Amino acid sequence: MTMDRRTFLAAAGSAALATRTLAVPATAKPPGKGPHGGFPQGFLWGAATAGHQVEGNDTASDTWLLENVKPTVFAEPSRDACNSFELWAQDLDLVRDLGLNTYRFSLEWSRIEPEPGLFSIAMLDHYRRIIEGCRARGLTPVVTFNHFTCPRWFSAANGWLNEQSPVWFARYCEHAARHLAGGIGYATTLNEPNLLRLLKWMNLPAPFLEGQRAMLSAAARATGTAAFSAANATNVEDLDRQMEHLLAAHATGRAAIKAVRPDLPVGVSLAVQDDQAVGSAVERDKKRDYCYGPWLHAAVHDDFIGVQNYDRTRIGPSGNVPPPATAPKDGMGREIYPASLGDAVRYVHEATGIAVMVTENGLGTPNDAQRAAYIPEALAGLKAAMDDGVPVHGYMHWSLLDNFEWVFGYGPKYGLVAVDRQTFRRTPKPSAAVYGAIARRNAI
Amino acid sequence: MTMDRRTFLAAAGSAALATRTLAVPATAKPPGKGPHGGFPQGFLWGAATAGHQVEGNDTASDTWLLENVKPTVFAEPSRDACNSFELWAQDLDLVRDLGLNTYRFSLEWSRIEPEPGLFSIAMLDHYRRIIEGCRARGLTPVVTFNHFTCPRWFSAANGWLNEQSPVWFARYCEHAARHLAGGIGYATTLNEPNLLRLLKWMNLPAPFLEGQRAMLSAAARATGTAAFSAANATNVEDLDRQMEHLLAAHATGRAAIKAVRPDLPVGVSLAVQDDQAVGSAVERDKKRDYCYGPWLHAAVHDDFIGVQNYDRTRIGPSGNVPPPATAPKDGMGREIYPASLGDAVRYVHEATGIAVMVTENGLGTPNDAQRAAYIPEALAGLKAAMDDGVPVHGYMHWSLLDNFEWVFGYGPKYGLVAVDRQTFRRTPKPSAAVYGAIARRNAI
Repeated sequence: MTMDRRTFLAAAGSAALATRTLAVPATAKPPGKGPHGGFPQGFLWGAATAGHQVEGNDTASDTWLLENVKPTVFAEPSRDACNSFELWAQDLDLVRDLGLNTYRFSLEWSRIEPEPGLFSIAMLDHYRRIIEGCRARGLTPVVTFNHFTCPRWFSAANGWLNEQSPVWFARYCEHAARHLAGGIGYATTLNEPNLLRLLKWMNLPAPFLEGQRAMLSAAARATGTAAFSAANATNVEDLDRQMEHLLAAHATGRAAIKAVRPDLPVGVSLAVQDDQAVGSAVERDKKRDYCYGPWLHAAVHDDFIGVQNYDRTRIGPSGNVPPPATAPKDGMGREIYPASLGDAVRYVHEATGIAVMVTENGLGTPNDAQRAAYIPEALAGLKAAMDDGVPVHGYMHWSLLDNFEWVFGYGPKYGLVAVDRQTFRRTPKPSAAVYGAIARRNAI
Repeated sequence: MTMDRRTFLAAAGSAALATRTLAVPATAKPPGKGPHGGFPQGFLWGAATAGHQVEGNDTASDTWLLENVKPTVFAEPSRDACNSFELWAQDLDLVRDLGLNTYRFSLEWSRIEPEPGLFSIAMLDHYRRIIEGCRARGLTPVVTFNHFTCPRWFSAANGWLNEQSPVWFARYCEHAARHLAGGIGYATTLNEPNLLRLLKWMNLPAPFLEGQRAMLSAAARATGTAAFSAANATNVEDLDRQMEHLLAAHATGRAAIKAVRPDLPVGVSLAVQDDQAVGSAVERDKKRDYCYGPWLHAAVHDDFIGVQNYDRTRIGPSGNVPPPATAPKDGMGREIYPASLGDAVRYVHEATGIAVMVTENGLGTPNDAQRAAYIPEALAGLKAAMDDGVPVHGYMHWSLLDNFEWVFGYGPKYGLVAVDRQTFRRTPKPSAAVYGAIARRNAI
């Protein structure tokens, strides 16, 4: 899928869903229990971005190609995004000035290894400057090694469907870690590698899937190759093979990073809905097994697990149950349900026994008042889970900036900060002050 | 040809050649006559670079693809080059600190228009910062709108062989000029558009030409297109058509720039050898007609003409005459003949009647003492031409940095400044001090 899960859910009118909770301890030593009403000392308060979504002109990436071939399922191309490739220092200043202590961002594999085996010292230096820039501002860098986008050459070799892909990913991770690991606070290998299975479970409309197939064929033609597939755009019949290689890549990538710096906490970020059973839990549990099971199983070897939650689903014996008619909706018609975060975190911890980092949570809405109201409520649910014993390292709001939301383009507004698409001027929204105040006092 | 002319000449063992001189007035009002022994006040003392050769990771360009396809005639890929995309401010500091007052650099079309009609404000902003950086340091920016490299999409549409190419180039020039022209001192449209005819005249070895043909076929396959051609890599049978479109592109590009800023001096930079007749001038004049004629004819409408000279040839009735056996040679076995610059400038001015800017002159040698000796001698010849009445705006030494010399990769050393290929540290060579001292005192 080339879609962003959360956005897709919204656009699809968001079907039904169900909660489950959990609670456990961590390997990577999250902050201890905080004072009553407060978060533990050292809790990471962050904002998150991803390379392709904010940097702009990520022209050597697979996704740039997919956006620009004909036909494409992308609403618009990413173009300059937020120009964070040049303006990253402004972004770090923003994070600091909001009162946060953590910045989650990603390395662009396609910049670091634009041709197979050809690694760019210049681009590794670029990301090192960002990491040093975080440290200079007192920000902990939480670094995603691969946030969906891959080099064009990789996806033109059929991407994650190629059995060499875990080896290629490990080689990249090793080079990146050798140059960068010293300054990183927390690393994740892959971002939402379970996304396509989650979307498959949802039975995306056939026209979309056919459009995606045509887009991938066009990309193959445009690169003179037999088959082209991307992390978030792969035909449904190939998803099992893709997952197998992604699971292997997480293991090889983690090992490559750990070989360079054994003490660096490494995990993987999963897309996790709050899946609530309505009546019998059979269907709900089938979904969980399919969408998260293999990854939760794999993650038990990790130092922490990244949870990315945006919503709930309610699942009955005969499938998804629509949200209550009276439920508040965001600007895209999706139910606003802040409690989903705490539920998802409990579930993941219960299933794995390891510590959690909330690497994404947020709301896609043009109405910033909804976001300002959402954040304290979501955090209350998170805090309740922590009070019940779930070890949580931190919370990274998605997103620092209004950015490129994959197939939906620039429509969805997830940012704490608005970005002018011509001048790239950043303007914090009121929700940023709400969130920043919570971070500064380390309490809701 | 994917070759750099000057380097090719050296590598080819440099055949024979012949001088001719000239002298005339200018449209763009070059500095007046200087005091005896000195250059006129306001004379431009510069160092030159070109985007692809110094920026690094120019991945959306045609040339990046040609370097990385198999087979390729490139000795090595450009990779990070000098990382000037990120370190351009250091480069400007160097130019200023050497005592120069001018910086010649180029815009990368492939960054500014990475897909057809998709213009990047971020990248235009990038080049605007460089132009503003020049002004802040008291440097006049001499800007090449297109220094060989074109967007991959352009060359995958058969590049300058496509009859739309002059229109595409004009559209790019218009966008670039709208964003940038205000700060530019002098603009050139194309760099050495006569290079491939010059190389054709030299009868490049068949194996090289076949290698180039195979490389272009590989690039066509890699982009899913029927035919791929680049400004400095086109099959010989297509060169007449290419020149026709390049001539049109110079006209449309100039008009587009002038439409935005009528007072901006605009020209084109030509590769001009010092062609000396040995005995009868018939063959020499045939070469001149073929290699420069159409461009000199076109340039009479320009505000100035850029001359890029590196060497002489001597041409007799039966072809090239080898250099004298006792001639000094550079590190590549090419005759060192500093007088070629003054000769070339005289010829071009005589043929066009317009003012000259020396946009390139230099020496490819690992022995910097040769460069240090060469510069004052070449400038003496230039000054003599000026004293004889040739209006010359300035002199830009090629090159500021040791950089990526096209098919020859990083072998040739043209820089006033050495660059470490791992750290990108810049280290001025003694020749830089020699040249800088001349510039500071505005006299040899």
